[in-house]
Amino acid sequence: MATDLISEIDRRRLDIAARLPEIKADALLVSSPANIRYLSDYTGSNGLILLLACETHFFTDPRYEISARENITGKVHIVKGPLIAGVIQIIKRKRLKRIGFESAWTQFEAYQRLKEDLPLGASLVPAGRIVEERRMLKSPAEIDTIRRSVNLNSEAYARVLKRIRPGVRESDVAAEIEYQMRMLGAEKPSFDTIVAAGARSALPHSQPTSNRIDANELLLIDMGASLEGYASDMTRVIHLGQPPKRIREMYRAVLEAQLAGIAAVQEGTTAGKIDATTRNVLKQHKLDKEFVHSTGHGLGLEIHEPPRIGKKDKTRLRAGMAITIEPGVYVEGLAGIRIEDTVLVTKNGCEVLTPTSKEFVQL
Amino acid sequence: MATDLISEIDRRRLDIAARLPEIKADALLVSSPANIRYLSDYTGSNGLILLLACETHFFTDPRYEISARENITGKVHIVKGPLIAGVIQIIKRKRLKRIGFESAWTQFEAYQRLKEDLPLGASLVPAGRIVEERRMLKSPAEIDTIRRSVNLNSEAYARVLKRIRPGVRESDVAAEIEYQMRMLGAEKPSFDTIVAAGARSALPHSQPTSNRIDANELLLIDMGASLEGYASDMTRVIHLGQPPKRIREMYRAVLEAQLAGIAAVQEGTTAGKIDATTRNVLKQHKLDKEFVHSTGHGLGLEIHEPPRIGKKDKTRLRAGMAITIEPGVYVEGLAGIRIEDTVLVTKNGCEVLTPTSKEFVQL
Repeated sequence: MATDLISEIDRRRLDIAARLPEIKADALLVSSPANIRYLSDYTGSNGLILLLACETHFFTDPRYEISARENITGKVHIVKGPLIAGVIQIIKRKRLKRIGFESAWTQFEAYQRLKEDLPLGASLVPAGRIVEERRMLKSPAEIDTIRRSVNLNSEAYARVLKRIRPGVRESDVAAEIEYQMRMLGAEKPSFDTIVAAGARSALPHSQPTSNRIDANELLLIDMGASLEGYASDMTRVIHLGQPPKRIREMYRAVLEAQLAGIAAVQEGTTAGKIDATTRNVLKQHKLDKEFVHSTGHGLGLEIHEPPRIGKKDKTRLRAGMAITIEPGVYVEGLAGIRIEDTVLVTKNGCEVLTPTSKEFVQL
Repeated sequence: MATDLISEIDRRRLDIAARLPEIKADALLVSSPANIRYLSDYTGSNGLILLLACETHFFTDPRYEISARENITGKVHIVKGPLIAGVIQIIKRKRLKRIGFESAWTQFEAYQRLKEDLPLGASLVPAGRIVEERRMLKSPAEIDTIRRSVNLNSEAYARVLKRIRPGVRESDVAAEIEYQMRMLGAEKPSFDTIVAAGARSALPHSQPTSNRIDANELLLIDMGASLEGYASDMTRVIHLGQPPKRIREMYRAVLEAQLAGIAAVQEGTTAGKIDATTRNVLKQHKLDKEFVHSTGHGLGLEIHEPPRIGKKDKTRLRAGMAITIEPGVYVEGLAGIRIEDTVLVTKNGCEVLTPTSKEFVQL
């Protein structure tokens, strides 16, 4: 079959190259590490890609020569010193006139230097997020990797859940979570693991402390693994001992909002509509003012990538998008409750990838 | 004593504010997360600082309201939506005319948006790396934290070293290292831990694989912890079984180069001179072509920060700088050997902070 003759990487490059006329560019300079990985499988810390209509140039430094020559298709250039000097050479040799650049990623200083070094008659064209837009739609291979990342993450959670008891420190739980992820094959956490007990759970993104978890306390865990570069993301809240009525009510409201958000996910719906759905449920419970962030975000090679599932966002969901649904409410001095799954948009609605139960676990 | 009346954060802000006239700016917009932390202790993911001559404005979103109001001095603004809108309000209210921005950090798109939103008559001024320059010189409190980070890192290494034996996977060793760091109080690794066995050690920055370490193999470990935000960094190479003569010779050459580099560290010397020193030693051993990176880098709130200890770098070392000295040689198909310590520049030369032995350990 024809599609098998072209690798997935080549197909991505062709799709991006096909959009060059639209941004009126002869080439696209790719500098975002996630985008570079997407277009080459390169995972190091110093690479650049110059994508032309019919060929791809990859630039790295001598540290990566061995692996780059082995693994990267296209023309590989090993550059001593700033990689951009190698890019400029190709721009000159190929007489490129309009160079697209990743305006959402490129730093002002790098932009300035690039502009100064360009040959006479060549110019820079802001290319927005065309690689990120392609990345929103995951291929079957990518979906498989995300699915395995999500399953691995849930398995790490299950292993650690068994060991949580009063007296352990937040940071111990985080250490154990990350160790289990690693032992299950993850490269690392996809973001800083959050383990927050009691009122600290109302601080949505705080670092685990050396505080010991109390016998009658709520515990919020937000964790994700990175597997073969692909992120997973899950939040669960558990309670040590019997939760008070107010907490149980909050939990039920957040769960209702989360389930409503998931039920609303389908091709063609806007991201903003999903956000409005969860927000509405929380409004009915008079908790919408305590919901101080967006409903979710895309994930893949980055833990946060388009689309953003936020207020008034007009991105239309499409089959193959992987997103989180994670409403939460935060009451200062009392508790923060957030429930989050990783969800795949499908032709018929969506599939919740996260296998972990959302019952309110009491330990 | 007068200095105690001013907090360290205030002193940093005053020092940066004192340089505003030099860059001809009324204010500096700080957007680099490490610089924001340096000037406010804020550790979240969404903050901005607008530093004026006599006051500091801090901007974050409602998720961080509770902790920001508790912990951050100066004027705290909680902004719904893009923080930059809050910054523009202050620029208007204070009638600021020339806004310095971090040109090495700010993305082109953010720069463009900021420029468009500025009130009539106001303009943007590239401010280079003035906060990073201040950060090069560590305070006694920072040095204490770096020292504890380095000691913690070495202790984690010592704990794991005992458990390394033929048959364990590279990724197990990495998992164990990171777990021990965590249990010793680190927030996380300061960079992706490198554990590379055999010929894979010649790839300077590769991820640990699920390959099992052989009975007669070299093992390169490059690891660092982040403690209270401050990085440590150390590389050691060990050998399972008796190392062959060629490897022993390479090890001795790299160690000689590393010790020569350390001996050359003193106030007033340029970074380039230190790099030339290690490179020269390796040249005497005919290994300079295999030394494909710089001799080291500054570290602190970031794992890589100025100064760069590289070829022709003219930065003069000053007491209070924390840097790494890490020459290495990489022979394709055979082995990579790198030896790295974290070193503090002092009034009388330097202090090697890393307590771990550099004898060629054989397990």
